[in-house]
Amino acid sequence: MDVRIEAAVAAALSLGQGPVGGDAPSRLRAALDHAVFPGGARIRPTILVSVARACGDDRPHLTDAAAAALELIHCASLVHDDLPCFDDADIRRGKPTVHRAYGEPVAVLAGDSLIVLAFEVLARAAGESPQRAVELIRVLAQRTGMPGGICAGQGWESEAEVNVAAYHRAKTGALFIAATQMGAIAAGQEPEPWEELGARIGEAFQVADDLKDALLTEAEMGKPAGQDAAHARPSAVAELGVQGAVSYLKDILGGAIASIPSCPGEAMLAAMVRAYAERMTPVALQPVRG
Amino acid sequence: MDVRIEAAVAAALSLGQGPVGGDAPSRLRAALDHAVFPGGARIRPTILVSVARACGDDRPHLTDAAAAALELIHCASLVHDDLPCFDDADIRRGKPTVHRAYGEPVAVLAGDSLIVLAFEVLARAAGESPQRAVELIRVLAQRTGMPGGICAGQGWESEAEVNVAAYHRAKTGALFIAATQMGAIAAGQEPEPWEELGARIGEAFQVADDLKDALLTEAEMGKPAGQDAAHARPSAVAELGVQGAVSYLKDILGGAIASIPSCPGEAMLAAMVRAYAERMTPVALQPVRG
Repeated sequence: MDVRIEAAVAAALSLGQGPVGGDAPSRLRAALDHAVFPGGARIRPTILVSVARACGDDRPHLTDAAAAALELIHCASLVHDDLPCFDDADIRRGKPTVHRAYGEPVAVLAGDSLIVLAFEVLARAAGESPQRAVELIRVLAQRTGMPGGICAGQGWESEAEVNVAAYHRAKTGALFIAATQMGAIAAGQEPEPWEELGARIGEAFQVADDLKDALLTEAEMGKPAGQDAAHARPSAVAELGVQGAVSYLKDILGGAIASIPSCPGEAMLAAMVRAYAERMTPVALQPVRG
Repeated sequence: MDVRIEAAVAAALSLGQGPVGGDAPSRLRAALDHAVFPGGARIRPTILVSVARACGDDRPHLTDAAAAALELIHCASLVHDDLPCFDDADIRRGKPTVHRAYGEPVAVLAGDSLIVLAFEVLARAAGESPQRAVELIRVLAQRTGMPGGICAGQGWESEAEVNVAAYHRAKTGALFIAATQMGAIAAGQEPEPWEELGARIGEAFQVADDLKDALLTEAEMGKPAGQDAAHARPSAVAELGVQGAVSYLKDILGGAIASIPSCPGEAMLAAMVRAYAERMTPVALQPVRG
């Protein structure tokens, strides 16, 4: 667990919950906590902070706000994706989903509130760097909403004909691109050179998720398994088979490392991607070490 | 219809929809349009633009973005409030609600996308005034999310015991406060002196809505009537009776006019509040003119 990221997310959540004994409705207040803690792997904010560090991290409070904002958006998307009208999921991260614990109205509002809170956190962190804050908000919004963010990605699941490339780019790729670009912006760098790294990490996670969904059990994942096949969703495993998907995953990660822009922390970022590559490959498929 | 506001909202919507023939899912794209056009009275952005004009309106593109962003948030709240888990409404503004026309998944995503788009529009309008843009985003988020915005207001409807004052302040008042404060910020003024005007206009609209809900028919309102009584919701009519509520409405509007901060457009704003007062009182209850 990364203490810096947990602290940033906790500070953001406190802002949204308001003071204990304040004028906020208590069930929605509790639902926000339920949606955000305990977290999953916090992969997106970890990538964001890694890129910011690789670029010098000269405004650490802005990096913290960006990391928290990105994680809030991710948590909001999980709360809404779990709703009965989408995945109708009972379990998330090994405990009841928000709508199972607090009911559907509170779950819709918890997702809405977390989206809004993400932007509020960034606006409040602007301080002496309003230009960077505005740019962080712009990129986060672009990768969250329509026409190309995760809302668009989820929206493809309601279409009669799916543009599979656009679907994956928006549904999984968008927030990884936000991670690398927001890390760069928080540290005063241009976002454009960082798009490819985010896109490739996103593709890798998509393939890794497809592999996990096909190979692991519900107990191992902390959520229902075999959902891609059950919902006939496009999947790298369905398309390439298990070994084909594993080898595709390696290619993508090689491309990710090659795409890292020149910066002081270049080698550290390459090591990070390699570490993810190892964690992403299901144990059963990893080569036996000599 | 205010051409300036319709143009600003249309420009914002185009940004969210992306180019025709682009990579966005088409049903969600159409649902955004359905949620925003044709509009209702556009009261909140009209108040916002009026306050900005009263303060000099020296950055009109920022005022336009603020007006559009506020209206997008309002439209998003209507889409989500109409969902089956809340009001389960079939009709809004005389046509099917978004979930009736496009299904529940698309309606959830349309609301989410409109919320995100509101913040994107403000970030993109920052230009040479990033400090004002950040402040607009902060105020809009504060009045939309938790712990005191319209999400909190709606959240009170899921509580066993309701803090009625906090409920009304958040559910109806918040976006009117955003309207007056964002108008001031867009024109370079401090938001604090403008809070009371927004709060009082919001209270007045709440009482006027209670009166309409009690007195008008579904055909006259373009949405189901008698909902407060049906859902046993707190209402000024239930509390004070019809004549009592009408006289309370007049008191509030008098207070609103008295609260207008000193500015070049003070008299114009007072006239605007008086005009709303007349429109707000159901015709059957207006005094006969001599």
